[in-house]
Amino acid sequence: MTITATTSYEPLTETTAVSLAKDLEFFKEGALLHCQEIGDGNLNLVFHIRDENNTGIIIKQALPYAKVVGESWPLTLHRATIEGDYLKNAATLVPNLVPKVYYTNEELAITIMEDLSHLEIVRNGFIGGKDYPLLSKHIGEYLAKTLFYTSDFGLNQQEKKKLQQQFANPELCKITEDLVFTDPFFDSETNSYEPELLGAVEELWKNETLKLEVAKLKYKFLTNGEALLHGDLHTGSIFANDIDTKVIDPEFAYFGPIGFDIGQFFANILLQAITRSDDERVAITTHLHQVWEVFTSTFSDLWKTASVEQFTTTPGYLDYVLKKVFAEASGFAGCEVIRRTIGLAHVADLDTIQPFAKRIATKQKALELGRLLILDATNFKNTKEIESAFENVLKGNE
Amino acid sequence: MTITATTSYEPLTETTAVSLAKDLEFFKEGALLHCQEIGDGNLNLVFHIRDENNTGIIIKQALPYAKVVGESWPLTLHRATIEGDYLKNAATLVPNLVPKVYYTNEELAITIMEDLSHLEIVRNGFIGGKDYPLLSKHIGEYLAKTLFYTSDFGLNQQEKKKLQQQFANPELCKITEDLVFTDPFFDSETNSYEPELLGAVEELWKNETLKLEVAKLKYKFLTNGEALLHGDLHTGSIFANDIDTKVIDPEFAYFGPIGFDIGQFFANILLQAITRSDDERVAITTHLHQVWEVFTSTFSDLWKTASVEQFTTTPGYLDYVLKKVFAEASGFAGCEVIRRTIGLAHVADLDTIQPFAKRIATKQKALELGRLLILDATNFKNTKEIESAFENVLKGNE
Repeated sequence: MTITATTSYEPLTETTAVSLAKDLEFFKEGALLHCQEIGDGNLNLVFHIRDENNTGIIIKQALPYAKVVGESWPLTLHRATIEGDYLKNAATLVPNLVPKVYYTNEELAITIMEDLSHLEIVRNGFIGGKDYPLLSKHIGEYLAKTLFYTSDFGLNQQEKKKLQQQFANPELCKITEDLVFTDPFFDSETNSYEPELLGAVEELWKNETLKLEVAKLKYKFLTNGEALLHGDLHTGSIFANDIDTKVIDPEFAYFGPIGFDIGQFFANILLQAITRSDDERVAITTHLHQVWEVFTSTFSDLWKTASVEQFTTTPGYLDYVLKKVFAEASGFAGCEVIRRTIGLAHVADLDTIQPFAKRIATKQKALELGRLLILDATNFKNTKEIESAFENVLKGNE
Repeated sequence: MTITATTSYEPLTETTAVSLAKDLEFFKEGALLHCQEIGDGNLNLVFHIRDENNTGIIIKQALPYAKVVGESWPLTLHRATIEGDYLKNAATLVPNLVPKVYYTNEELAITIMEDLSHLEIVRNGFIGGKDYPLLSKHIGEYLAKTLFYTSDFGLNQQEKKKLQQQFANPELCKITEDLVFTDPFFDSETNSYEPELLGAVEELWKNETLKLEVAKLKYKFLTNGEALLHGDLHTGSIFANDIDTKVIDPEFAYFGPIGFDIGQFFANILLQAITRSDDERVAITTHLHQVWEVFTSTFSDLWKTASVEQFTTTPGYLDYVLKKVFAEASGFAGCEVIRRTIGLAHVADLDTIQPFAKRIATKQKALELGRLLILDATNFKNTKEIESAFENVLKGNE
């Protein structure tokens, strides 16, 4: 059978994806199309369709379930709408930093968008030794613009509430609430770690001071609807090459604390940096400084030139907001580092380290780093202090 | 013409209100009905309909505009739905403390509810010299239960997000954002104060330290969706007698910071207490202590027995939440005290003070009290310390 834009939901195949692309006239009649499913198949189908000139599109379709480590649970198709809506909104704020969306279909849970196959996933590039020097400049700008213009500082406060209502995303938030902020800090079934880490993991579970700070961070994630977040801004959600950067996969988008997206990015930078030798590390830690520097300077400019909030002229208010965001970003980064080490969803940066003994030693350092980022969140004044703490962890455990 | 339950929106009259009550069979056929419009006509029509046995109902209908001090602006009828939905939710949590809702009609913007005419509005009773000894016990319980059970501590976190989406209330939030948190702190057209207060008012506007704290409080109001608030919990929204207490008028309901409802109640208690002689004041300030005591003990019990949040077993977390709520309640109370003194919507407690010189002197003390509640919000440890500060204000300016 043929899937058309008016069909009710069923998962596409390579054949029906091509039919749909033709039906929607994305290609000239008679074009010779090549289609490949390139998703990981756990959450979404991703079809790359291109013609004989290598001009292509991406058809992304949400699956009605999530598969992680063999388990499968139902998951709302509404996330495709969230993703499409987020990308359309981001296109008005940072058009160069997101893929163009050509078509969405809520019923089919489909987003058809720009083919980014000339770029590579940053995490994979990093693991292969690349640097992407413009990455953090672009992400700093991305963070400042997407967060400022959807916050009460940059968006009419009634419009913001309507947007917040549109981006209620309970099921995907629940995944973050559980997997980032809860399960890693208790002896939960979803956790996944090498037996050699058990001692270090049990130390975390017994650390009530740490858990109190995690509880506070989780509460901020649950309650602080400051701005429209990407919600999953790790290096696997960013395509790049030496000159271009594109953020993808905003299915977790919702209104949360501004520091969350920043913290996720910090954490995934550190999770790559921790795998690198002394010589190769600075190319990565540079991103920590640059992303914060570009974020704060862009955000501060917008604060001064594009504010809709009367109190932004009050002395000290911008400084208060930036300090609060930085402290929360550090805390959120700590949670992300820990959950990517011992929680359900790992990162390849750590899991591909060889030999095994080095992998375990690095993961132990990651846990120590995560702990510090959470406990010292309100003490760090800038990213240099975070880097110092990070370097101390590297030295102390060597 | 006759208004029926299927008619499209138009304002009721006493005649059409009776027709509607009959149409909906609230009274026996042939009953002799008496109807009186008892609202203030600024925001809503309120019809009290009763039969020959004095058995009655209240029909409340939202008007599509708000009139305050001669000005009129359009205002969403959706607030009637918000009010009905809030009261239905509250009926499951504190059935004895809200009027029973018999019928709602979104199209007509109507809520038909329990006749509370055996009770009186607390603000009016207070001004007449009454005390209502059980008031703060009931309100403490009301606050603890309505706030806990709609927070992430007491409500499944996915259900909470859906409820939060349902209670998006941008237009009415905007009124609070402007009239409580913004206008009184700038030279805004909506402000209203006696020329004799100009010096004190200008001092507020110049106080950048104060304004920074107000900015932070406003930001919490804008972003912290902690629990479903009543949103307007002053003594004019509470009916009582010596044994019963009923909270009405939750049109401003939305998900905001837990401390807001508490702070509004604190403020309106203080705004009555400030008008009383030394001998008669303690009966009122008692409510400050009792409401916080009952709130904290009830909230703490629920925390221990009815939590849905894994981290509520973490030592120190309850204490952190209660401290945060108390500090925010103090700050919010300060904003409310100030706006009720110099903003658009005054309170009769202050405006009925005679002679004029005493009224001005009391309002000056109110401004000083508001300033202290905001600036010392994070220093106050308990309501006794707030009372001490309050007594100092009373003495210092005498």
